[in-house]
Amino acid sequence: MKNIGIAIHGGAGTILKSKMTPQKEADFKSSLEDALTEGWNILNSNKSSLDAVERAVEILENNPLFNAGKGSVFTHEGKHEMDASIMDGKTLNAGCVSSVCNIKNPVLLARLIMEKSDFVYLNGKGAEEFAAKHNLVFEKNEYFFDEYRYSQYLNALEKDSVILDHSDEDKTKKFGTVGAVALDSKGNLAAATSTGGMTNKKFGRIGDSPIIGAGTYANNFTCAVSCTGNGEYFLRSVTAYDVSALMEYRNISLNEAAKFVVQVKLKAIKKKNGLIAIDKYNNISMIFNTKGMYRASIKTGKDIEIKIYK
Amino acid sequence: MKNIGIAIHGGAGTILKSKMTPQKEADFKSSLEDALTEGWNILNSNKSSLDAVERAVEILENNPLFNAGKGSVFTHEGKHEMDASIMDGKTLNAGCVSSVCNIKNPVLLARLIMEKSDFVYLNGKGAEEFAAKHNLVFEKNEYFFDEYRYSQYLNALEKDSVILDHSDEDKTKKFGTVGAVALDSKGNLAAATSTGGMTNKKFGRIGDSPIIGAGTYANNFTCAVSCTGNGEYFLRSVTAYDVSALMEYRNISLNEAAKFVVQVKLKAIKKKNGLIAIDKYNNISMIFNTKGMYRASIKTGKDIEIKIYK
Repeated sequence: MKNIGIAIHGGAGTILKSKMTPQKEADFKSSLEDALTEGWNILNSNKSSLDAVERAVEILENNPLFNAGKGSVFTHEGKHEMDASIMDGKTLNAGCVSSVCNIKNPVLLARLIMEKSDFVYLNGKGAEEFAAKHNLVFEKNEYFFDEYRYSQYLNALEKDSVILDHSDEDKTKKFGTVGAVALDSKGNLAAATSTGGMTNKKFGRIGDSPIIGAGTYANNFTCAVSCTGNGEYFLRSVTAYDVSALMEYRNISLNEAAKFVVQVKLKAIKKKNGLIAIDKYNNISMIFNTKGMYRASIKTGKDIEIKIYK
Repeated sequence: MKNIGIAIHGGAGTILKSKMTPQKEADFKSSLEDALTEGWNILNSNKSSLDAVERAVEILENNPLFNAGKGSVFTHEGKHEMDASIMDGKTLNAGCVSSVCNIKNPVLLARLIMEKSDFVYLNGKGAEEFAAKHNLVFEKNEYFFDEYRYSQYLNALEKDSVILDHSDEDKTKKFGTVGAVALDSKGNLAAATSTGGMTNKKFGRIGDSPIIGAGTYANNFTCAVSCTGNGEYFLRSVTAYDVSALMEYRNISLNEAAKFVVQVKLKAIKKKNGLIAIDKYNNISMIFNTKGMYRASIKTGKDIEIKIYK
């Protein structure tokens, strides 16, 4: 029997039910369902986990509710700089891109880099040039304009403090990321992550989302992981690969490894984070130490699950 | 008794004795000795391993023999784009920088990012802006001009093939990196890596050198690592952190972990690489599967060791 599964996230943070309207909640849930269903249909038609995670992330990138692609936040200069990465657990091939502007779907560019370049990681103008050479879709600045993101930006500019502001509210804004992990019918794992960065970010800051090992990792022998949370800490702790290394070298389960990383290692240093992961046995973990994480999953023999809060 | 140690590298690759003159060999060796000795003196005066690795890498960056800082190769556009990273094994703090031009010492910028910004990883123009704000030394393009590097560049441009050219000679050119790892008298480990990238590189390519976990990693509980070799593979295999994870999760020695990573994992996929590492017990490993690696080390109770070939 076919054993397939997919999980997606739309970011973790201080997502409070008290601040959510029923309509907004319904919008988030139906958006997650759309992305998950498309990924699931791909897996169901025996296509690859790579295709499934790419497509699920692409749909989340096209949705202004999430901080990735169309919904990307504003940088200090009022631009939208996006990062993404994708990894194939079968070949350990990967593609990463950071600080790109006007690319409609950074996850498609990450895959293009993986498959059509001699490199793993391209950045900025050079990456845009590579995208143009391969006819990837560009969008004008207006496409990425969103009234809510713009007000966040103006507010941040005025205070000039978002980056240092660790109020609960600002943390929600900071941790916007989308991601997907999947297992296909051939037993191949894949992971993808995409983000629009931090509101009012300066100095060409890069977080964990484009970095293999930090924000994204996939290996058929262990698991596929996509992270969301404090990018600075993920970079230093090599979080996504750490889940895989714990499974491989300690011989523990996906759930034990993911829990150890998020609830012991990350919680110990008071960092708010979450991750989704799937292993070769189709076990799915969606773990976070924040108030909430936009998330959804479906797998063989199990109904669709869509959740926001704990 | 004080137990301190430091190891440095100036890149691994197809370094053939048959292509080396006695003068060139002597130049490389005395350059390595200069950098090592400065790092050693810092450790000997009870200063931190962080200071020692930073200074050793800074000296290598100032030497045109090595592909980092002053000796950086030319990109496709005829620029010098540099990457560096540094990590403190005590705090797990880190600083990373990529694609910066005209910065005299990228390793100093990496440390500045670690200590004076809220971020871990800055890139390109934004990182240069941050450097300027903190009065870091900039140099004009002429400072980075080197006749030999320029002829490599013209040759690569003419063939437009360096990136794909896997001839032995070109591999030497590609794998230029410098790095240092050290243990100080307080038992703190640190690592730093710096590179001038690949000759004729395009599209804003980023390798492993600025990435924590890939090219650089340090953790007082395990080891400090700096890699040199195929950056694309290091990114995908999370090489530097892998040595640490093997020690921590499998409870094996530094030497066993480093050998497993370089001689089993990397050799299996025919990737030519090397790394230097030091652990909390002051064991030093300098391992590579190439013809040579510019390397040097010194530690309490052991004489200075400077080597190029196997």
